[in-house]
Amino acid sequence: MKITAVILAGGRGERFWPKSRTDCPKQFLSLTSDGETLIRKTVNRLSELTDAEDTFIVTNEKYLHLVYEQLPMIPKENVISEPAARNTAPCIGLAAGIIQKKYGEDAVMLVLPSDHLIKFNAMFADTLRQAVKVAKDNENLVTIGITPTYPETGYGYINFAANEYINGAYKVISFVEKPNIEKAKEYVSSGEYLWNSGMFVWKASSILYNIRKHIPEMYEGLAKIFDTFGDSGFDKTLNYEYPLLKSESIDFGVMEKAENIYTLPGNFGWDDVGSWLALERINPTNDYGNMITGDVVSVETKNTTVIGGKKLIATVGLDNIVVVDTDDAILICAKDKTQDVKKVIENLKICNRSTLL
Amino acid sequence: MKITAVILAGGRGERFWPKSRTDCPKQFLSLTSDGETLIRKTVNRLSELTDAEDTFIVTNEKYLHLVYEQLPMIPKENVISEPAARNTAPCIGLAAGIIQKKYGEDAVMLVLPSDHLIKFNAMFADTLRQAVKVAKDNENLVTIGITPTYPETGYGYINFAANEYINGAYKVISFVEKPNIEKAKEYVSSGEYLWNSGMFVWKASSILYNIRKHIPEMYEGLAKIFDTFGDSGFDKTLNYEYPLLKSESIDFGVMEKAENIYTLPGNFGWDDVGSWLALERINPTNDYGNMITGDVVSVETKNTTVIGGKKLIATVGLDNIVVVDTDDAILICAKDKTQDVKKVIENLKICNRSTLL
Repeated sequence: MKITAVILAGGRGERFWPKSRTDCPKQFLSLTSDGETLIRKTVNRLSELTDAEDTFIVTNEKYLHLVYEQLPMIPKENVISEPAARNTAPCIGLAAGIIQKKYGEDAVMLVLPSDHLIKFNAMFADTLRQAVKVAKDNENLVTIGITPTYPETGYGYINFAANEYINGAYKVISFVEKPNIEKAKEYVSSGEYLWNSGMFVWKASSILYNIRKHIPEMYEGLAKIFDTFGDSGFDKTLNYEYPLLKSESIDFGVMEKAENIYTLPGNFGWDDVGSWLALERINPTNDYGNMITGDVVSVETKNTTVIGGKKLIATVGLDNIVVVDTDDAILICAKDKTQDVKKVIENLKICNRSTLL
Repeated sequence: MKITAVILAGGRGERFWPKSRTDCPKQFLSLTSDGETLIRKTVNRLSELTDAEDTFIVTNEKYLHLVYEQLPMIPKENVISEPAARNTAPCIGLAAGIIQKKYGEDAVMLVLPSDHLIKFNAMFADTLRQAVKVAKDNENLVTIGITPTYPETGYGYINFAANEYINGAYKVISFVEKPNIEKAKEYVSSGEYLWNSGMFVWKASSILYNIRKHIPEMYEGLAKIFDTFGDSGFDKTLNYEYPLLKSESIDFGVMEKAENIYTLPGNFGWDDVGSWLALERINPTNDYGNMITGDVVSVETKNTTVIGGKKLIATVGLDNIVVVDTDDAILICAKDKTQDVKKVIENLKICNRSTLL
């Protein structure tokens, strides 16, 4: 049974503006002191589970050069370029079709975001190995849930049946949208909810079976494409058919409707690096709770994150602020408003300031 | 009776870092939309009171070129270059000696800081004309007090005798150091206190009389210098003797000890532009209380001052923050900590980062 990996690398990472830009989004940046980019870390931590030759990257055409540059170990033919952004269902389906064609029906796919961080790689590998055991039977779809440590309102949750499990994976009752704080507190204290991490394990044939069942018109379009994989007409078909597919997430399109969904709780120090707040979680802070890099003088400043650029940054009397300096833009943001960085981007789009996006 | 003006332009303006720098301090900057520098405004508003030929500038040697450039109407021989910074008593005494030598004992001096703003120039001129009337008799020393509008703790106060006045000027009882907030509130509600503005009106002979009386050793040193005024040996004497003088403020050295001190309340829209907070007082703010110049995108930001530079500044969720961008440094400061900008400068000094000072 072949284990393959599919890394989703088409995201825009808008909440990491101004570092993350349209032409170099978050997954291609390093946010840790070791200088390794997030996508490179993602590939590296798979080394215990699968070979680089069996790892696929699905990304946007304009990031191909970044993928080639940062992931020289991945064969170029394993890098799939989406002609248009259509959310996760089409790109996972396309990768599944290609993998099934190349490795057969039993091939297992580890589907992974490219822009998350994981602290304990060995535990991560153990969890995925366990997930593979569950995924190889029936058309089981396994999603890796993260044991919640606080009532986060920015994530979706997975409600599971605590009494119904196989090989350590619980049967999923339902997927729940981002809750309000009261609901989130209930979920966390109930012990029957996990965070939805966007990491999945299944056989290629299982997810294709489910896409065919729940989004049949998408399956038809995808089949036209992956049937030509390995032929000279592949690129042409991909470029014609893919943009015709509807935009749909795998969560909404398949996971919320399918049966045989299992979740395996992960406790491997996962961080989705979802906003600038992540930096203080993944990097050491000083005695005042500040996470500072670059040329910075801080006076009476606490709980503040400063990512310096080429000029001196002086902070005086700041509390709970994030400062990120780049060559052409500087962000100064209250920590409780980091989600609103997207509004800056909206404003820049409206004003056609594409060089800043 | 000749009316002369002495403009004190040797200050460093540290609280206006990073705009104000050692080689171009605050008085030589424009902080208003008309682009006029503070020192130029100071000279301009004197036009009703005195002639440019009778206006003297006391400044540091390294600012001579800025004075010549920004104040071409002032004769170069009226620009006095301090060989060393010795606070206000020596430089006022030196100017007084020169003025007395040039214009005689009755010449009146208007002593004015170079870095304040005044909204109502005609009222300012009226107040000074009134002060001249008081100053011409006896050895009266007149200080312009500002009617306090709120209990500021950053200024010194003048306590005056409400029942004892001549020509609208009240007899000064005492000068009071910067008070705490409780004291400041008492002062404001009593109606017997004014802010000490650092503007003085007196005859050259009156202030020299008082310097001689209260700081005799300083008078001796000064006399050696101004006795040579107009001679070829002046520069040499100045450069030798001036650095030997002790550093002393005119307030502490003379005003707190002398008799015949009067204060005239000024209500001409005075602002000492003492910190970055001044910008929102002297420039219009928008509906959210923001004072913004430059390329700025602000999201959910209020009561915030942003002085943009060459790059985009995006602010998200800020409240009561000051942001000032320059080519080599950016300041981000809580509004209630603007006085602590000096601590940034101390830090830069300790680290020998002179290019940033």
